[in-house]
This record gives sequence, C-alpha cells and structure tokens, in this order.
Amino acid sequence: MSAPTIPETQKGVIFYENNGTLEYKDIPVPKPAPNELLINVKYSGVCHTDLHAWKGDWPLPVKLPLVGGHEGAGVVVALGSNVKNWKVGDYAGIKWLNGCCMSCEDCELGNESNCPQADLSGYTHDGSFQQYATTDAVQAAKISPGTDLAEVAPVLCAGLTVYKALKSAELEAGQWVAISGACGGLGSLAVQYAKAMGYRVLGIDGGDEKAKMFKELGGEYFIDFTKCKDIIGEVVKATNGGAHGVINVSVSEAAISASTRYARANGTVVLVGLPAGAYCKSEVFNQVVKSIKIVGSYVGNRADTREALDFFNRGLVKAPIKVVGLSTLPEIYDKMIKGQIFGRYVVDTYK
Amino acid sequence: MSAPTIPETQKGVIFYENNGTLEYKDIPVPKPAPNELLINVKYSGVCHTDLHAWKGDWPLPVKLPLVGGHEGAGVVVALGSNVKNWKVGDYAGIKWLNGCCMSCEDCELGNESNCPQADLSGYTHDGSFQQYATTDAVQAAKISPGTDLAEVAPVLCAGLTVYKALKSAELEAGQWVAISGACGGLGSLAVQYAKAMGYRVLGIDGGDEKAKMFKELGGEYFIDFTKCKDIIGEVVKATNGGAHGVINVSVSEAAISASTRYARANGTVVLVGLPAGAYCKSEVFNQVVKSIKIVGSYVGNRADTREALDFFNRGLVKAPIKVVGLSTLPEIYDKMIKGQIFGRYVVDTYK
Amino acid sequence: MSAPTIPETQKGVIFYENNGTLEYKDIPVPKPAPNELLINVKYSGVCHTDLHAWKGDWPLPVKLPLVGGHEGAGVVVALGSNVKNWKVGDYAGIKWLNGCCMSCEDCELGNESNCPQADLSGYTHDGSFQQYATTDAVQAAKISPGTDLAEVAPVLCAGLTVYKALKSAELEAGQWVAISGACGGLGSLAVQYAKAMGYRVLGIDGGDEKAKMFKELGGEYFIDFTKCKDIIGEVVKATNGGAHGVINVSVSEAAISASTRYARANGTVVLVGLPAGAYCKSEVFNQVVKSIKIVGSYVGNRADTREALDFFNRGLVKAPIKVVGLSTLPEIYDKMIKGQIFGRYVVDTYK
Amino acid sequence: MSAPTIPETQKGVIFYENNGTLEYKDIPVPKPAPNELLINVKYSGVCHTDLHAWKGDWPLPVKLPLVGGHEGAGVVVALGSNVKNWKVGDYAGIKWLNGCCMSCEDCELGNESNCPQADLSGYTHDGSFQQYATTDAVQAAKISPGTDLAEVAPVLCAGLTVYKALKSAELEAGQWVAISGACGGLGSLAVQYAKAMGYRVLGIDGGDEKAKMFKELGGEYFIDFTKCKDIIGEVVKATNGGAHGVINVSVSEAAISASTRYARANGTVVLVGLPAGAYCKSEVFNQVVKSIKIVGSYVGNRADTREALDFFNRGLVKAPIKVVGLSTLPEIYDKMIKGQIFGRYVVDTYK
Repeated sequence: MSAPTIPETQKGVIFYENNGTLEYKDIPVPKPAPNELLINVKYSGVCHTDLHAWKGDWPLPVKLPLVGGHEGAGVVVALGSNVKNWKVGDYAGIKWLNGCCMSCEDCELGNESNCPQADLSGYTHDGSFQQYATTDAVQAAKISPGTDLAEVAPVLCAGLTVYKALKSAELEAGQWVAISGACGGLGSLAVQYAKAMGYRVLGIDGGDEKAKMFKELGGEYFIDFTKCKDIIGEVVKATNGGAHGVINVSVSEAAISASTRYARANGTVVLVGLPAGAYCKSEVFNQVVKSIKIVGSYVGNRADTREALDFFNRGLVKAPIKVVGLSTLPEIYDKMIKGQIFGRYVVDTYK
Repeated sequence: MSAPTIPETQKGVIFYENNGTLEYKDIPVPKPAPNELLINVKYSGVCHTDLHAWKGDWPLPVKLPLVGGHEGAGVVVALGSNVKNWKVGDYAGIKWLNGCCMSCEDCELGNESNCPQADLSGYTHDGSFQQYATTDAVQAAKISPGTDLAEVAPVLCAGLTVYKALKSAELEAGQWVAISGACGGLGSLAVQYAKAMGYRVLGIDGGDEKAKMFKELGGEYFIDFTKCKDIIGEVVKATNGGAHGVINVSVSEAAISASTRYARANGTVVLVGLPAGAYCKSEVFNQVVKSIKIVGSYVGNRADTREALDFFNRGLVKAPIKVVGLSTLPEIYDKMIKGQIFGRYVVDTYK
Repeated sequence: MSAPTIPETQKGVIFYENNGTLEYKDIPVPKPAPNELLINVKYSGVCHTDLHAWKGDWPLPVKLPLVGGHEGAGVVVALGSNVKNWKVGDYAGIKWLNGCCMSCEDCELGNESNCPQADLSGYTHDGSFQQYATTDAVQAAKISPGTDLAEVAPVLCAGLTVYKALKSAELEAGQWVAISGACGGLGSLAVQYAKAMGYRVLGIDGGDEKAKMFKELGGEYFIDFTKCKDIIGEVVKATNGGAHGVINVSVSEAAISASTRYARANGTVVLVGLPAGAYCKSEVFNQVVKSIKIVGSYVGNRADTREALDFFNRGLVKAPIKVVGLSTLPEIYDKMIKGQIFGRYVVDTYK
Repeated sequence: MSAPTIPETQKGVIFYENNGTLEYKDIPVPKPAPNELLINVKYSGVCHTDLHAWKGDWPLPVKLPLVGGHEGAGVVVALGSNVKNWKVGDYAGIKWLNGCCMSCEDCELGNESNCPQADLSGYTHDGSFQQYATTDAVQAAKISPGTDLAEVAPVLCAGLTVYKALKSAELEAGQWVAISGACGGLGSLAVQYAKAMGYRVLGIDGGDEKAKMFKELGGEYFIDFTKCKDIIGEVVKATNGGAHGVINVSVSEAAISASTRYARANGTVVLVGLPAGAYCKSEVFNQVVKSIKIVGSYVGNRADTREALDFFNRGLVKAPIKVVGLSTLPEIYDKMIKGQIFGRYVVDTYK
C-alpha cells in the first residue's frame, strides 16, 4: 500500500476551558510519538464521559485545550518509529485508555485502566473528535478488515465497558443478570452481551417502547419501573430468589441501593457508571447475611477489547446508532444535558 | 466406651423475653432429634451476637424463651437414630449454624449459612450456655481428641468468622491485608490467621497496649488511630499503594467508609461484623475507577470450620481467653454493653 | 395426595455374578432407610457404565447380585422417617451418586462424588433397572412437575457428566471448545450444553450423517476424522490458535493424546470417559511450554445436577432417545458390546 | 548520575554450534534497540536450560552463535530511545523471557511466556554470560537498590519458575504441597516459597544430607526415596489423604507418574521441568475418578517476577549459591552433564 497523504491541518471540535465553546474548526494534525499510531478517524461515538470532560465535574483534571472523543474508528496512516505488529492501512480503534506505562503493578496484572500513568483519550490526550488522532500502538484496538467503522465505534467504549462489567459479575451460564437501565446506550448493549454469554436477562427500565425494545434485544423478563410497585419483590420472584448479578447502568442512587436488595445470596452487584458525586449505600446487615459483593468495574483491558469486538464481529451485538456530522457535536452535547438522547450518536468526522 | 449417664436437668442461662432477666437455673436436658447429637458442653465462648440475640435488635426474630451461646465445645453423649460418622465420646463443637436443610440451592453450593431454613445456635435453637445442647450431626464441628476445650471454643465462631472473612478477600500470599479493629476479640484472631496464611498484616487500633499486642500476634505495621492524623494516607504509604484486602472487624461506619479509600486498586474490602442498622457508604466514582470490591462475609461452612480448626490444632492461632463460670454470664453481658471487654470470655458450664 | 399402594414385588433386571445372565424377573421391592426415598421408576437411561458394572472390569468391585441403572426418573412413593423437603408425588431422579457421607472433606467441599463412602446406583446400590428403587433424599435429583420422564432420564447421568466436564474446562463465553466424539450419546449432549453456555463448538466425529447431526445440534465447525489428514492442524487453524477447551468424550488413547496437541496455550483438556486400563500420555515439553491443563472430570454434585436439569427444562438440551422395554435390556447390552448404539436408549420399566 | 563509560568489547562465553566449544573471550558489547536496556551484568546464575541450549536437544532451535545465560543481575548503563520508567544506575535483571510482542492474545492475557514472538535470553537472544547484555525494558526485572546481585541472580529464573509452579497449583494456605526433588536447585527454592505461602511442605529426595537440608529450609515431612518402599502410600498417609498439590521438579518419568497417584482427590499435579522427550503418563480411570488436574507451568510473567523478588527481598527465600568466575563456565557445564551439581552456581562476569 502506498503511503497515504497526511494533511497539515484537519477538522476537529476543540474547547479551551471547561464549559467553554465547542469550536468546530481547522486544527493541526498531530504527529505520532515513537510508540504511537496516527489514525485517520472516520467515525467516533459520543459518550456521557465526553460531557463530563467538557464540564470538568470529575475529580480528575482534563488537558486543556482539549479535543474530546474516545470511541474512534478509523485507518492507520502512520506509525511511530518503534511500533511493531501494525501497518499502514490497518483498521484501528481509539479507546478511552489511550496508553499506559505497561510497567507498573496494575499494568503487569492486566489492570491497565488502573495505571497511575494512564493516558485517556478525549480527557488527558486529544481524542477522536478530529480527523486524525494518535494512540499508543499497544493499546490501539485491532479492528478486522471490512468492518463497518460507524457500527463498531460504540463498541470501543460502551460495548467494552458493559462487557467488562458483565465479566466482573463472574456469572455462570444459565444464571440471572438484572440490568438496571436496560434500554439506554449502555444497557441495550449489556442485554445483548449478556444473552450471548448464556445468561438469563432481566431488564429494568421505563415505558412500553422500552419493554418492546428489550424483548427485541433478547431479554427474557422486563420490569417497567413506571408501573411496578415493588421492584425488589418482583426481581426476587422472577428470578426465583434474586438476581445472581446486577449491572447498574442506571446511575440513580436509589436504583443502586435497591439492587443490593434484589441480588441473590452470594450474588454480585456491579457499579459501572460514573455519576459525579454519587454514593452506593448498602445496609451492612443485609450485605453480610446474604454475602453480597458490590464491585466497581471500570473499562476493559486489551484482552477484554479483543473479546468485546469478537462478539460484535460474530453479529451477536449491535448498537442502535444515529450517524450525524462532527460539526453538529455541540447540539448532541446539548441533547445529552437535556436527557434527550436515545441510542448512541456516532459522528462522521468528514461532515 | 460405656454410655454416659445423662441427667434429666442441668444448669443453663435462659431468658424469656428480649432484654429480660438472664436466669441461671435448672432447666431440662434436651433430647436429640434423629439427625442430632447431644453434646455435653464443657465450655462456651461469649460473642457480641449473644448480646444482639438477647436485645432482639436484629431484623431476624429469636426463639423465646432462649438459651444463648454458639461457641460450645464438649463431648458427644448421645446420637440421634439416623446419625452417621460420630460416636459417643467424640469431641464436638456447637457453631452458630446449628443445622440447615442441605437441599436448597445455597446448601448445595456450600453456602450453608445462607440457607433460608438455617437453624442458629443461641438464636433460633437453644445454644451452648447450658451443660447439654443439641446440634445437627452434619453441622457439628469435629474437634480432635485431646484438644483443650476452653481454648478451642472461640475458634468455633470468632475464629471461623475471621478465617472466612480472610478467604473472602481472595488474597495471595505476600499481599497486604489491613485489619480495622486489629486487637479486639475478632481482630486478634484475624491477625494470627492472616499471618499464617502468608499475608502481610497491617493493623489499625487504638493505644500503646494494642500496638504492643499487635506485634506479639505477628502483625507487621500498626496504625494507632488515636494518634494518626491521616489513616488513609498512612495505609497507602505503608502498603506501597493501598491494602490488597481489608477486614472490617470494627463496625464503625466511618472506619468502614475509610477502608474503601485505602484499599488498593482491584482490592477487596470485607464487611464482617453485624452492627444493627449500619450502612456501608462508598463513593461510586472512587469504587469504579479503582475497581474495588466490597464483600459481605458471614460465617464459614463445614469445610471452613475444619480448616479454621486445623490452623488452631497446628498452634498457629490462639485466642486470648478469660475463663469464668457460666453463672457469671449476666455480668459479662453487662461489660459488653459498657464496652469493657478485652479478649474473649469463655464460660465454664460447671461453674 | 393419598398414599400410593406399593407392591411387595416388582419387575427388574438382575445379575448374580459379573458377566452372568441378565435376568428380567420378579424381585422384592426395597424398603427406604430413614434417610431415603422410595421412587417408582418410570424410565431409566442405559449407559456404558452399566456395561462396566456387569463386566466388572473396573478397579472398583460391584455389589452382587446387582440391579444396574443410574439414570432413573420417576415419582416419590415413600419417605424414610428422617427425610425432609420431599413429599409423596414429587418427581425425582436417581443418579450415579446414590448417597454419600456428607461429613468427609470431599463432601464438605461439594466434591461429593469423590467421597470415600460414595454409594453408587447400579454399582454398589441396586439401581434404576427396576420399578421401585431407593436413593438418599439429599442426593435425589429434583425433577420439575410435568417433566417428560423419558426425555429427562439421560440428563441424570449423561447430561450431568458432560455439563460438569464443560464446567471443569473453565471457559469463558465466546471461547472455542472442541468435542472429541461429538455425535455419540455424551457428545451430542455436550454440543448442546456448550452452545447454551455461549461457547463456540468444534466437533470431531466420523461420517456425513454425523456432520449433519452436528450442525443440527448447534455446532459451528465439524472435522470428519475419516477424511481429515491433519486433525491437529485443522483444529488449530479453525480456532485461530487451538481450542480453549477440549472435552474428550471419545475414549481412544490416540484421540486423547492428540487433544493435548490441539489445545490452545493455557487451554484445558478434559478427560471424562472411564475406559478400563487406558492412559493419557502427554509430552512434558509441549505441556509445559504451552501451559496446558489436563483435568479429570467425574460426575457433578447436587448443584451441578440442578443446573444441568435447568438447561433441559428451558428446552436448551435434548437427548436423542429411543424408548424400549426394560425386558429388552440384555439386547441393548449386546448392542453396546458390538458398538451398535446410536443415541441413548431409555427403558420403560413397565414394558 | 554521570553516564557510565561503556567499552566496545567485553568478556563473554560464546559457542558457534550446538555442542561446540564454549569460548571465554573478547566479544563486542551489544547496542540496545529503542525498546531495550543495556545492562552491565555483574552475576548470572547457571541453569539446566543453558545446557539444553548448548546441546540443542529441544524442539525449538537456538540462535547461533550464542551467548547463553538467563539469570543475569546487574546495573542499567544505557537506555534505548523509547524506554520509559528506567534510568541509568537502576538495578535490573535479565530473565528467560527477554522480550515479547505485548500485542498478541497471550501477551494481552498476561501469558507472556507463551507469546509466539517470545525472545528468549541465552536461547534466541544473547544472554547473561557476558558483561553487557540487552533486554526489553518492559520485561527487564526491577531489582531493588542495595540488593546483593549474586544472591538475587537465581531468583530470576529458578525462583520465578518454582514460584509460578506453586501459583499454578492454586492451593490454599494450610494445604499440603509435595515437592518431588525437594533439595535440588529448584526444589530448595520451592520448599522456601511454599513455606512462605502458608503451605505445609512434604519433600521427596534421597539421602540423609538432603533430609537435614529439607528441615533447615522449613519443610515439614521428608520422604527419602532411597529408603521408602511405598512412596505413594507414605505421601497419602502423611498428608491424611494425599497432597493437595505436587510440584514435579524431578524430571523422572516414573516420579511424575507416581505423583498422579499420591495427589489428593481434586488435587493438582504441576509439571515444571523440561526434560527432552519425556512423557507424563496418567491412568485415565484414576485421574477421572479422583478429578485430578495435571498442569504445565512454564515461567512467570512480569507480575510473578515482581512477586517472586518480593519474597526474596523480605528474606523469606534464599538460594544456596556458589560463586565462581565466568571463565570457569565450561567446567560447570561438565559437572551438570555428570550430575555433580549441588545448589546453584552463579558466575561473576568479572572473573
């Protein structure tokens, strides 16, 4: 393959201070460091985390100015001098974990996202809301040739995150997993992964449209929180004793606390969203006597990424995406703030 | 061995309503059911749970009238008609879990203490504060011939509980375990088990006497909460990144919450005490980003009991006991209420 | 429910010495011990183990005279005096493990089939080739009301055994499992369980009919050993590096040794059949450098039984059975000896 | 720290063909690649693997000409252009795994030694039998400042290998591990690690001197194979049912086969040595009925290395070394061939 022509400038969305204007404009194309790939980003998913980065409401400070985005799918156009096992033309993905040290205890143990030197796309490293972005070659996601790059984008964070959360629940095939917030961007992927992993899926969400969507995704038992008077009781009854695992995609404190009540004895409650300032409150007596685990699950590592993509490649999971132009990103942020998002927005970096 | 003579009546301590008088008096000797052993209890440990049973401040109702006690060590004097693998003269122990159904899902999985039909010594089944007590033969603890029955008594609940808590932390040899409340009745056993299991032990407790005791028990690093200004910081520093596991023997809500802060990334916080009405409060952002587990640990099963006793038999753990007469039990309860207990009281049922 | 009338004698198949005549005749109805159920067996599967019991070619001696059979499905008609949690009229199953001590280390750990006092149906305890049989109430399988008792019979040993073997492989959803002998009585169940557990299934067996059957059962990739010149190479290629797990239902020594070669690095080879006198031979260099596990898997415990039945109840696995009369059992043994069995024979005890 | 002066040539031991002369001579100092460290090797352990590399009797071809050695301890003197988290003057170790791709499935899962692109010190990459050697910075072992570099050398392969083997046995504290070949170079380290990990250690080796050494190392029960008539029976008796784990440091085929007989039900037999052409032969009936695992364990990964060194740093393990000059290496090989090695030889690269 002949080397692609790489321009000096490109389109991207950048902001200069937290809550500042999101500017869609010409910005320089970055140069890859020796350990990095330069990726021509075609599509990028938009995630709630992008909103937190822009607002700056998490305890961890962001790089400024910042190009957000951490679900970028594209094509490798240049390699740093020390990169191995990649070539120009390969499909590659930009994940939340842009790079890490690979030599600390966390990295050694495969807990790369816990690395104290973790470099985060769209947070501490310019991300995928631009046409050309860099990422560490070891952390870049390998995307199979021929993949639909718009479809795969949300798998790189949303898919990976719920897949990792499901793994963190340490369930066996045939066990019940309850997904609190089953039909949102993360939840709808969680339902599909859970089904493909052999679990029985109970979903909690609100409204008839969600109930219908849940069944179409492969879910088995739906609880409509706008109608059910006793969610804890209904989960326990439907699962014949409580859910073996719970994935708390919903970030409501009340919903999280309830999940510690409808988990089965020796079951696992997984916390996966990152609401600013929220607490998980669990009654000690209940948690001890029922021997319940409450587990924080962050994002997956390289192996989890490969596996999450493999389920996608096999056609077992599919995010309900809406593709719009990168230039419309400020409007998407506005919708997220107003809670008007259904499904997953994916931006086309060339529109 | 010739059959022992079993009297019709015996000495025991009984109460007729919650918070009612603790009466040391003559009561009938119980008859073993077909699946039960009758044990001539020689010694019984006294546990905080006995106080909760008497007060009735847990969500679970007690049998009334009630003979408390669930750390009884003695000698088998009679067998129910369907008992196998026991004989008169064997040493046996009465545990918190007096019996369970053995056929529900929890029992099948070895989570016997979570059995919905669990029968609890000194709570739903008359316990070990009497000279003769019954227990299911399958659940009775096997105590080796020649064992000092006073010394072994506290292993049957306190020892078993902390041993199980340590197993629930799923640590590897060489990792750090922090024990919050390291020098109390449970904590002092936890330190010894942890040491014997190959862990590095950090203890948190208050006062110079406790510091000295901690080192004698085999602990490596002590934090005196009466002196330390930044417990979280000191644990993180001493363990080079946070404790891999935390055993919360202390039931202080503030101490429990702090433990979610000084646990290492991917570490495990174990809840093990049963304070009435207390909550564990964990910040979701911290728990997710550090991928921390918070695990409720109840009491061990039959296998855990055998293992906990094996460490005792090998001389690796020893409870600091004070032996007094059963007739003085009301005074011990009084001391427990006033927080004046150091070490573990063991009652001699013949005094 | 009024108590059923229990006759004094019944039809059964009995033999008096190893390799002796299999006599279909009137024999006494057994009485349940205090811990036992008396089950009116309606159907029983026929297993290769029954042949070994009759031949006496295993290192473990059988009871003589013996009524064989250990896949019996029927209805509870009487309870021993000490039985709990069962009632007359319940559906119940007789498994290979008829009873065990519940108090040894193996039983405590849930490894009940490894109990030194294990009592085995159709081996050391008269089994299910009779109309009325006894089994320990704790070990009896709970069968849901309304279940087709002929269909469920083979799940009680064949299904349970392959389900346990799959669990012993400790695979994750999405990983490859190779089933050597994929279309026989055990293999065909293994394919279905593996599929339901979220694994990708590669089968090895011989002939076009088997290839077709394999796909119908939900298998993904078939290797016909009568045609393939390089089975090891083909498995490695089809699975992109080797199978994560292998279930050796085939008892051929050569096939077992080959499986140690086509397992993936860090993969698990499961031995599950019990060929008399066979050895598993593995090259140490290969096994060490690829860090391969070779694991013996016996039969499942009570929890495994409940789970294996649950997959059946949900319609996810179905044994291809042929129902014949109990009186024809000698002919079935004859076919087994000649290797003429396809699918699973189930005997109707009333024919 | 001022940059050290790095010479152009150095002393090393090199051979040009398998079984060829081992030449102690002046050879060029290698240059580190961008991802590599250049280490001034002070001491290197000598391992049986070095003999296999020289003989070329393993299925895997060696680099030729070759400088052997893979237990090198020294000081970093230069860094490749892309190296992070190291500085000149750091103590560092050269392990068997010199480098790997970090991007294949095995590397992603932390199974780095199984990487198909694994680069092996003293095998496919010039090793530590020279004064200056290179290694990938991510794989280099971090050695604490002030460590005795001669003492630590054997931990880098022998220590790491037995530590990993013990982890592969997946034992719990208090369980029995049998070490077959307990007092050789690997075995003596295995005994110490096992003790520090909380296991009870049974050793098998030959002779009174070995028996004495075993007790000094912290072993609990010794079997002298030159005297014991029934090793299987004695292990089963001493461990009250069989060893929970077995580490086969001995590479005798008969000893390995015996270990499958004295392992406890559900126990784990670990294969760890790499005898050319040897087989592990296990009776299928025994392995299935006792549910025994036979596990190949290769070398540990980066995390295992850190942990193995940590036990050494804490003074819990110590290899019995003999320090000699690098120039005498041919004589050590000669002794290894003749089986005259006791303890671990360490060569001083400056003598």
